[in-house]
Amino acid sequence: MTNLKNEWRIDFRQTAADCNAQSQLPLPLIVQRVIDIATYHANHLNIGFDRLERENKRWVLTRLTIEMKRHPRIGEEYSMITWLESFNRHFSERNMAFVTPDGEALGYIRTIWSIINKETRQSEDIPDPERLADVINPRPCPIEKFRRMRPVSEPEFSDTYRFRYCDTDFNRHVNSGRYVELILNHFPMEYFDDRNVCRLELAYMKECYCGDEARVDYVTESPNALIAEIVVASEPICRARLTFDNA
Amino acid sequence: MTNLKNEWRIDFRQTAADCNAQSQLPLPLIVQRVIDIATYHANHLNIGFDRLERENKRWVLTRLTIEMKRHPRIGEEYSMITWLESFNRHFSERNMAFVTPDGEALGYIRTIWSIINKETRQSEDIPDPERLADVINPRPCPIEKFRRMRPVSEPEFSDTYRFRYCDTDFNRHVNSGRYVELILNHFPMEYFDDRNVCRLELAYMKECYCGDEARVDYVTESPNALIAEIVVASEPICRARLTFDNA
Repeated sequence: MTNLKNEWRIDFRQTAADCNAQSQLPLPLIVQRVIDIATYHANHLNIGFDRLERENKRWVLTRLTIEMKRHPRIGEEYSMITWLESFNRHFSERNMAFVTPDGEALGYIRTIWSIINKETRQSEDIPDPERLADVINPRPCPIEKFRRMRPVSEPEFSDTYRFRYCDTDFNRHVNSGRYVELILNHFPMEYFDDRNVCRLELAYMKECYCGDEARVDYVTESPNALIAEIVVASEPICRARLTFDNA
Repeated sequence: MTNLKNEWRIDFRQTAADCNAQSQLPLPLIVQRVIDIATYHANHLNIGFDRLERENKRWVLTRLTIEMKRHPRIGEEYSMITWLESFNRHFSERNMAFVTPDGEALGYIRTIWSIINKETRQSEDIPDPERLADVINPRPCPIEKFRRMRPVSEPEFSDTYRFRYCDTDFNRHVNSGRYVELILNHFPMEYFDDRNVCRLELAYMKECYCGDEARVDYVTESPNALIAEIVVASEPICRARLTFDNA
């Protein structure tokens, strides 16, 4: 791990244990690592868990866009790097890159975060604007920003699932990575053998909890994109666009 | 990561993102890390993935015992250390410890591994006995060995679940950690607020696959122990003992 103020890096070596059935870094694991590395960097900048905990606040991931050009091969070394692109009173834009030791970019991630009050669950101001202004990093993130998705009004197919204990995390709500699992779980394993999710966009809209009964509605948006919407008690919880290329 | 021949270490700092609803290192994550660190050490000893892949073989985790005395606090640094206790033609006994920088043992793990042929799924000899003999480490692992469990003949309660895409891994079968999730998922989140699994013993008996319909049968073994058995098509897949103390 390096320790630069305006960028944070974690080094990995891809293991077989960290691969899915298609020998790729699984999207749910990428989401978990997004949260991990953002947490580490925020802690280092003293706008992380400890400080917010004292102020009764939490960071919340609201938008996530992942684009992988190539997945690391088994045994391959790579780093995940994160930096802050911009912020305003309500949101911070944090980007990430997967890079090999010789500088090849394997993929990029764009995230948008906000702060909520732990008790009221209402939005709060981003802390320490002076400090954040100081660590803005102009490093490029050459993937398109998150694109809005319309609600899924006429699903082509749907699935149901009740969230369970191991779907929850420290915040005692359903973990961000589990929404991605739920969306992918509609499909048989072989489905992903001949199509690859090259871009995933996620809008986290509302928290949900252990025991919640969810419905996932799916609709084709274009020949190579699918929209999935997770709904609990008639309210959208999360909306995702999966863009496919050939595997 | 240190690089000793007879022990392998990975350093962690506990993040909130790596905690469950009870602010503990989740048991399924511990299982994933067991596989990761064993994989790293085996690779380093040249009896790992690359070498076995060329010989069309795979390591398989068959028995797992986890005992946590204390879980790392958020922000706390700790290391996971693994070493080989013994081996014979069919099995290798690999232990693990979670230790803090000042030497406090947070927990211990005992694992037993065998080798299978990737095509026939039949058992194969453990490779390179000379090399393994050379890295046997007498470091103590002061927890009781895995204790046999009887089949669950008269379950007190049962659950059903169909394994899905994100339950599978690189081997294209259900991931070892997912059995643990399935077993814990019977219970509401609050169940673990006032009881804590201080010891988990798992016997992995058979592989299962995406789409398999599983039943989990539960029976009380003693006032503080529960046995859970995962069954697919009338065959036991995995048997687990959860020993509780007060939370």
